[in-house]
Amino acid sequence: MEHRVEGYGFSRRQLLSLMGKAGGSIAVWHSAQALGLMSTPAEPSRPQGRMLTPLMHKNGTRPSVAVLGGGIGGLSAAFELEQAGYDVTILEASHRIGGRNFTVRAGTVIDELGNRQVCNFDNDPDLYFNAGPARIPAMHLRLMNYCREFAIELEPFINSNYNAWVVDKAINEGQRTRQRDVIADARGFIAELAAKGVSDTSLDAKVTDADLEKLTAYVRDFGDLNPESMRYEGSLRAGLLTDGMLDPIKVKPAGSAKELMNSQFVRNAMLFAENEYQAPSMMQSRGGMDRIVDAFVARLRKPPVTRARVVEIVNRENSVTVHYEQDDKIRTLRADYCLNSIPGQIMAGIKHNFSPRYTQLLGEIKRGMLSKIGFQMSRRFWEDEGIYGGISWTDRSTLQIWYPSHGSHRPKGVVLGAYIFSPDDNAALGRLSHKERLEYALVSGEAVHPGQYRAHMETGVSVVWHRMNHLLGCGSGIGHIGDVFDVEADKIRAQLLGGDGRHFMLGDQVSKHPGWQEGALAVTERVLQTVHQRESARRLSAAS
Amino acid sequence: MEHRVEGYGFSRRQLLSLMGKAGGSIAVWHSAQALGLMSTPAEPSRPQGRMLTPLMHKNGTRPSVAVLGGGIGGLSAAFELEQAGYDVTILEASHRIGGRNFTVRAGTVIDELGNRQVCNFDNDPDLYFNAGPARIPAMHLRLMNYCREFAIELEPFINSNYNAWVVDKAINEGQRTRQRDVIADARGFIAELAAKGVSDTSLDAKVTDADLEKLTAYVRDFGDLNPESMRYEGSLRAGLLTDGMLDPIKVKPAGSAKELMNSQFVRNAMLFAENEYQAPSMMQSRGGMDRIVDAFVARLRKPPVTRARVVEIVNRENSVTVHYEQDDKIRTLRADYCLNSIPGQIMAGIKHNFSPRYTQLLGEIKRGMLSKIGFQMSRRFWEDEGIYGGISWTDRSTLQIWYPSHGSHRPKGVVLGAYIFSPDDNAALGRLSHKERLEYALVSGEAVHPGQYRAHMETGVSVVWHRMNHLLGCGSGIGHIGDVFDVEADKIRAQLLGGDGRHFMLGDQVSKHPGWQEGALAVTERVLQTVHQRESARRLSAAS
Repeated sequence: MEHRVEGYGFSRRQLLSLMGKAGGSIAVWHSAQALGLMSTPAEPSRPQGRMLTPLMHKNGTRPSVAVLGGGIGGLSAAFELEQAGYDVTILEASHRIGGRNFTVRAGTVIDELGNRQVCNFDNDPDLYFNAGPARIPAMHLRLMNYCREFAIELEPFINSNYNAWVVDKAINEGQRTRQRDVIADARGFIAELAAKGVSDTSLDAKVTDADLEKLTAYVRDFGDLNPESMRYEGSLRAGLLTDGMLDPIKVKPAGSAKELMNSQFVRNAMLFAENEYQAPSMMQSRGGMDRIVDAFVARLRKPPVTRARVVEIVNRENSVTVHYEQDDKIRTLRADYCLNSIPGQIMAGIKHNFSPRYTQLLGEIKRGMLSKIGFQMSRRFWEDEGIYGGISWTDRSTLQIWYPSHGSHRPKGVVLGAYIFSPDDNAALGRLSHKERLEYALVSGEAVHPGQYRAHMETGVSVVWHRMNHLLGCGSGIGHIGDVFDVEADKIRAQLLGGDGRHFMLGDQVSKHPGWQEGALAVTERVLQTVHQRESARRLSAAS
Repeated sequence: MEHRVEGYGFSRRQLLSLMGKAGGSIAVWHSAQALGLMSTPAEPSRPQGRMLTPLMHKNGTRPSVAVLGGGIGGLSAAFELEQAGYDVTILEASHRIGGRNFTVRAGTVIDELGNRQVCNFDNDPDLYFNAGPARIPAMHLRLMNYCREFAIELEPFINSNYNAWVVDKAINEGQRTRQRDVIADARGFIAELAAKGVSDTSLDAKVTDADLEKLTAYVRDFGDLNPESMRYEGSLRAGLLTDGMLDPIKVKPAGSAKELMNSQFVRNAMLFAENEYQAPSMMQSRGGMDRIVDAFVARLRKPPVTRARVVEIVNRENSVTVHYEQDDKIRTLRADYCLNSIPGQIMAGIKHNFSPRYTQLLGEIKRGMLSKIGFQMSRRFWEDEGIYGGISWTDRSTLQIWYPSHGSHRPKGVVLGAYIFSPDDNAALGRLSHKERLEYALVSGEAVHPGQYRAHMETGVSVVWHRMNHLLGCGSGIGHIGDVFDVEADKIRAQLLGGDGRHFMLGDQVSKHPGWQEGALAVTERVLQTVHQRESARRLSAAS
């Protein structure tokens, strides 16, 4: 989820550290203020005009591009290239466009190998779940800019909810506990330790009483400590044992620090919404994430070719030939360039004539696995418990239960009953029948909502990405997936992005941000700049 | 905003404290675990049936109730009483129903004494702001239950946004800073101090190495510390100096602990969304908070009487007579009961014959002041900066800028340009002309969005509640307003809630939760139970 800061150059803090005496925050205050340095955030901005300057056309000739794969990477590439004057053909292996941008609703076919499902949710615009990307961080500017341009209606996605539940065997003997209780306690105990740190006798003597007083107040407020004892004795933040509106109140007593220490939730899930791309606010597209797919498709001049399975890529000096199977026939597409978002694990089985070096680089894309299970519930029982959107966390392999951020107080709702990260658990889930998978998730859900979850489940669907036809994975990437500090992976990525002759890889799999649409869009942007620069230069030299 | 825990009885922690040896979190772990106690949260639940059991009617007689004031307190009382068989008349002094549940949109009249405004926003369903209550905490169950019953469409309200700005003279020389920077740094420095606390040599010798290791890991992850040095050296949570999608990244260096210590934001605003009723998730009613008012009014059998200004209340043994002015005539309403939500500060000027004790209690309601300023912006420039909903905080008296949680990426938007809490600042604002008030808020906004804020402002409206006709205040309450531990206030409240003969006060002003609709609903519920019990008993004894 989050990774350590390593090798990011000479930091202000390191400078201060050299100047510090006794160590610790207080000792360096004075020099810190004297330096007066301040981080300059990378500012998002709204783009002006299109990504590529349109090509000049002579006699109507348009350079041709074969785009392999109709996910967000391929769609964005095709859209921008068409806008700049290229002739683009998308070949998509599946019956549907969108790749892992996949909204499951009434009638959706889940094309899993040997386990085809059809979604039986009621036909209702609010009854869906996004089996792939489901939330848009505000800082994902490329995606946000497309949403703005395409006038896709966005609504807030609730990622963190203090009223949602924790089920963790370390806490409260595994009984469900409100996140607000655990969060208030964890902050309280941390602050209590920090208060001890403040009063550490080894502190630099230069610290003034006024500084100490401010620091103490800061620590006290941070954890809502008892101001006299500087001990954590429970907090209103955890809520009350009483109603609190009219009569004298009772605050919940503090929980146990020992329990918290042993809790997965406290170590991971509680910190999750502090992360770079998980902090509020996040958004979703109203009616389903595939509104973005629809918007791209609606703007393409040439519709994508579906059920077109690539079997061979021949990369030549002046063109690329793609052989693909459609309607049991082998067909051929010849193009000036080939941009390829076929998953690395599938490319390994496709014939090609890439250079040995490039072939080796391709092999560095490691397959990721992720699964989601969606349940249609006959009643939004979680809202009776004060839960509107957000995520309950369990220490079981099903990990999370997501409540819909939309459609509050409507009769029914679709919850995400499992979001599975562990490769072993995903592999195990993949071996289960559809029915067994639902049962597996129901057991976890019942621990979070005893007496409610199973009773209100009407129908369910499982999407196990590593078994989905034409994809066979999700969140694939280079090196230690998600480790943005993996320098080796950065080098491999840079080489892959450079392409092999007229062939370039697309998709989030080549980015540092696998499993997110923004990663795919960043790759599209980089690859298109390379291709367009080359093509523009070629035309210029041909014209002179 | 938040208040200290005092005198809430014998806590688990206190018990542990008696059993502890060296003090501090670690020393009490063992006994804490042995006790195995766990807080039992007060569980919200969905109500079954109506609040009051309907009265049995003999010969069609219905007891009559005069409800003074058509805010949420009066409306909810009238609705529930009608459902139970009472004959209810609402007298409302203003031309409009709803009280401080007041949504300002195109054409809305702001009936301020001597400063009448008409809102010039474009006529567009997304262009509004809620001048009174604007967000619904999920734990406000009474209000949520009405929203469910009335099928009011709810949507998420974004209360906390890590991308929004801080303008605080203590930080970054008063230049705007992303909240994510400040929050990551503050947590980091707290954790660094806590790490010092962990390694305190005075720790209980019984703590095992395994415990220490877990505690250290917990503190490290909490603040995203460097795992070797256990120092805070900046965090990905603050975002990056680079794009982060493809190329090697640069993390922002850590800020200054000294600056944070002196920051209002860190001491208050940063902690604000941890509070009981401010933590995620929160909701808003789609299209404006006054959808709730409309829903109550639509369900009333007898429409409220507007422009009816109460001038005298005569409380007798068998009835209450209310004299009111309407169309320059004094009219009279006689009823079996009078439920009164007229603000305490206005009641002070209305003739009545209450008991001296009750009159004194009424005087304990202290007037609150709050103001909001709304601006229609020609462009949603904040979304170009990655801000979708949420609040930017300034250290100026205008305090906050709220961005709309709805209508993202539409051409225009309405921001709340000021939400003023300080009584002095509110008093000062009230003395300014409409134009001067807007200028006052524009200066603050320009500090948060230089070059954008003023340039895109099309029109604005100020709502200064202590100058609004028939209200003259907002967030009024008993004792130290908002201090839920004020035991003296609890006593006064209990007496006021008991009523004086056939007269009872209504509204959030009598609750522990002033300024929130839930406070008003809790008072309605309590008063109605008292009245209904009395009336039911009377009818039973009359029948026997």
